[in-house]
Amino acid sequence: MHSFNSRSTPPTIGEYLLDKLYQAGVHHIFGVPGDYVLRFDKLIEQHQIKFINTTRENTAGYAADAYARLKGMGVACITYGVGINIANALAQSYVESSPLVVISGTVGTEEFKKHTTMHHLINKSINAHGDRTQLKIFKQVTVDQGVLDNPETAASIIERVLNSCYSNKKPVYFEIPRNLVDFPIHHIPILSPFTYPPSNPQALKEAIEEIQTIFSSSSKPLIWAGHELLRFDLSHLLLRFAEGHKIPIVSSLLGKTVIDERHPLFAGVYQGGMSPPEIIQTVEQADCIFIAGVVMHDLDTGIFTAKVDHRKRIIANSYSLQIGHHIYENVSLVDLIKGLQRLSFQPNSTAYHQPRHTYLKTNFEPIPDAKTTTLRLFECLQSHLSGEHILISDVGDCLFGSADLILSQNSFIACPYFASLGFGTPAAIGAQIAAPHKRVVAVIGDGGFQMTAMELQAAIRYHLDPIIIIMNNHGYGTERPLLEGAYNDILNWNYTQITQVLGGGVGIRAETEKEMSDAFQQAFSRRGTFFLIEVELGKTDFSPGLKRLGELLGKVVKG
Amino acid sequence: MHSFNSRSTPPTIGEYLLDKLYQAGVHHIFGVPGDYVLRFDKLIEQHQIKFINTTRENTAGYAADAYARLKGMGVACITYGVGINIANALAQSYVESSPLVVISGTVGTEEFKKHTTMHHLINKSINAHGDRTQLKIFKQVTVDQGVLDNPETAASIIERVLNSCYSNKKPVYFEIPRNLVDFPIHHIPILSPFTYPPSNPQALKEAIEEIQTIFSSSSKPLIWAGHELLRFDLSHLLLRFAEGHKIPIVSSLLGKTVIDERHPLFAGVYQGGMSPPEIIQTVEQADCIFIAGVVMHDLDTGIFTAKVDHRKRIIANSYSLQIGHHIYENVSLVDLIKGLQRLSFQPNSTAYHQPRHTYLKTNFEPIPDAKTTTLRLFECLQSHLSGEHILISDVGDCLFGSADLILSQNSFIACPYFASLGFGTPAAIGAQIAAPHKRVVAVIGDGGFQMTAMELQAAIRYHLDPIIIIMNNHGYGTERPLLEGAYNDILNWNYTQITQVLGGGVGIRAETEKEMSDAFQQAFSRRGTFFLIEVELGKTDFSPGLKRLGELLGKVVKG
Repeated sequence: MHSFNSRSTPPTIGEYLLDKLYQAGVHHIFGVPGDYVLRFDKLIEQHQIKFINTTRENTAGYAADAYARLKGMGVACITYGVGINIANALAQSYVESSPLVVISGTVGTEEFKKHTTMHHLINKSINAHGDRTQLKIFKQVTVDQGVLDNPETAASIIERVLNSCYSNKKPVYFEIPRNLVDFPIHHIPILSPFTYPPSNPQALKEAIEEIQTIFSSSSKPLIWAGHELLRFDLSHLLLRFAEGHKIPIVSSLLGKTVIDERHPLFAGVYQGGMSPPEIIQTVEQADCIFIAGVVMHDLDTGIFTAKVDHRKRIIANSYSLQIGHHIYENVSLVDLIKGLQRLSFQPNSTAYHQPRHTYLKTNFEPIPDAKTTTLRLFECLQSHLSGEHILISDVGDCLFGSADLILSQNSFIACPYFASLGFGTPAAIGAQIAAPHKRVVAVIGDGGFQMTAMELQAAIRYHLDPIIIIMNNHGYGTERPLLEGAYNDILNWNYTQITQVLGGGVGIRAETEKEMSDAFQQAFSRRGTFFLIEVELGKTDFSPGLKRLGELLGKVVKG
Repeated sequence: MHSFNSRSTPPTIGEYLLDKLYQAGVHHIFGVPGDYVLRFDKLIEQHQIKFINTTRENTAGYAADAYARLKGMGVACITYGVGINIANALAQSYVESSPLVVISGTVGTEEFKKHTTMHHLINKSINAHGDRTQLKIFKQVTVDQGVLDNPETAASIIERVLNSCYSNKKPVYFEIPRNLVDFPIHHIPILSPFTYPPSNPQALKEAIEEIQTIFSSSSKPLIWAGHELLRFDLSHLLLRFAEGHKIPIVSSLLGKTVIDERHPLFAGVYQGGMSPPEIIQTVEQADCIFIAGVVMHDLDTGIFTAKVDHRKRIIANSYSLQIGHHIYENVSLVDLIKGLQRLSFQPNSTAYHQPRHTYLKTNFEPIPDAKTTTLRLFECLQSHLSGEHILISDVGDCLFGSADLILSQNSFIACPYFASLGFGTPAAIGAQIAAPHKRVVAVIGDGGFQMTAMELQAAIRYHLDPIIIIMNNHGYGTERPLLEGAYNDILNWNYTQITQVLGGGVGIRAETEKEMSDAFQQAFSRRGTFFLIEVELGKTDFSPGLKRLGELLGKVVKG
């Protein structure tokens, strides 16, 4: 076992990369071994970082993505060529700003000089140094890339690429020829901490002054907070600002739990026309909206129907700041949120929002023989959730149902923007490894579960105890209201029997409220084993949110 | 139900694409629905082509790849963004020359004008017409691409791109904005048949003459036949040539079963130093080698140690013809193999090869209580195989063991060059759908099986009856001799319990020869249900071929 500080001689390229990752808080690497990456896998085994096997590449990516959202950085490690299977996990991390690092072993530089047609190589984008196809593919879905084929430059490339990951909160990619893993770099490098690019101080000052003016003339200001505040660890600063001026906050769905949802200033998850009416009402009453770290994608664009004067709309992202119709350059989100603390204006006196926590129902009384429904499933789930839980949602009605849960700060992981069906199970594994003292609860539709179900193997192998709730609505329920067809049906599995295949875990099927309530009770009161709870739902038992979404999207799909 | 010939009015873009595919022999499309592709999925449902659901995108790609290898073209259909999950299946099809067509629905052109930040979009390579990220990724692993966003050009793009797929036997990609699926094209197009690019007749004549000279002066000629002969349907022509001149034939592993392996001229699968000694001996005795449709990748390069004068080496591929040290341009493999029929020289009189069929053991006598071994598994399997079977192999020792089986013509599907672990199960599904009157038998290691096991759902849903044989050697057996570590271990599943999860199929676990023999007997004598036979093997019970490979590769990996 070695770590950065204990080395007295220059580390190898592989060691240096692992040391830097460990320093950044990465204590686990998810992956699938393969001959081009075995040397690096061996090095992980000899390091303090622990290797976690997934059954395949894209689930390694999903697990590392969830890990990254909780720990600030996550790593997946693959072999060349077939490692292209991880491309979608990179795309999701790119779109949803998750600091995922993908490391691929590749053919040795000396081997490649002898034979360019090696197994796993694609040879479409070949140059003198190697096959560049995988690099070119991953360039499309990463912010920076480094090929570590030169001991002279490896250390500086590692520094640059990892800093790009840190400062953008987006994925990066490394490629290491297998013969260079153990090659020493030429000096013991200086340990430079990660940095953000500095803002232009004059632009920052001007922006803060303009925001001061806008807030001062507003009687019903609102903050719409997004996932970037979570990624850049700015939630507490934003909350302090909101508290100082009594400004209500809504969040995006991707940014759900950016602040504690039981906080009196929190008004709910805002998703445009899909939101519950009281949340829409709050947003539409606001006369000034500070939109911080939100990506306004199609499902959230209901905002444009709200009656907020453009001059009173501030859109702050990691990559741009827009006030009204003008854009500030070189004003970082980090500096801006810090700068808000200097604002001075009268606290908002009109309590025009309905605090979200007033909708919280902590008690669930099962009607014993009543058939389980989506609505009651989430009511039952809500009654068990506390600050010790992390909620994972897959894509589908599980997501729309989860949106309405009232959760504690930074305790929700989902992919509502890129929407990779099947994210739930591997994300639950990644999250449970990242946060062993919390309990992970995942809600997953049957369609999403079938994509990645068997990643539950890791729960047994690494002694993890997530609670997996399968919402079995017999097919791609989200698509039925859009355009129905047999393609929306899937084979109905005996889901709980997966515990028999894996040789562990507790599987329970619930058809009535009593069965569901008992199953949840048992699962939430017992740690040390994973639970797989299948809740039977009707084919067309949609959550209210899904019904509203279906109406909106159905028009587009059917033409 | 509509087909090309029955239309009296111009078809829509979607109908035209489906009609052309149907005409090309595509009767099934594999896919996962999603909102951007639902319109197209609906159109498939209304067409003669049948939609086959897989649980996820890359398995749709693998199944369609196997289908393509048997039917001449295969299609997978996905939604935008998360469809990137199919990239690796495209890469494999590209490398191993399988005519796979991937069709992705995408955001409507009118929607995109309003909002560029739609769910599933990546927005890294955006232009006025849409998000080009997925297109750029797939460009790296396809030979041609078409975006069908214009009814004026759609028909000609469909013609061009499908002809590229046909003439190169490599994958292509289509993208259709969802609002254009039902848009009529502007005329009823002419049904042009697929074509190959013509050869230069003078170059072809000169090449044939040179080959005639080489063969005439050779006393021990040999043909090394590869997968391109299968893809371009040239096996029968090559065999006729070989028979006319009594030339022995070896095949590559990727080209295994290019001719019937029980044919007296067939000498075995040649894989360089990994081959059984009698096959190496045959190749090393040859004084002239015609290498047809082989990609000489690393595992096959043992050829370069054979004592064949470069002047007597002819390397013919779809993309080039090399004789000695010179290259002919514009001589197609199709025209060259046809041209061979005109050669006139004395038949080979020296029977220097050992016909492969002399090694065929059709009888298997189990030693009842003996523990199952890899060697005996393949002996038992061989005794059951006949012309009615198609053998699928995943990657790993299942592949090296399969290499030695003696099979009938065009009855073997595997990916020994690109080596996507997990190909076996979805390939078995794709093959069984492509060839319903044959019986599909798949040998799959436990590591590969865990990647894609649940695609067996399709066996139940679509009433398929493949025989799946799991070689359970408890981990990534192929990697253990290279560099051992805990990363090569996997969780041991109760594999046969998967039949309980899926609610069908027959699961049998075999630890002794008697159990294995009985299980095979039962499976091969009964159609109408899939069989899942787990054969217990020792962790280090490697096939002879794997042992030799491990020695070769271990040196490279360990450095």
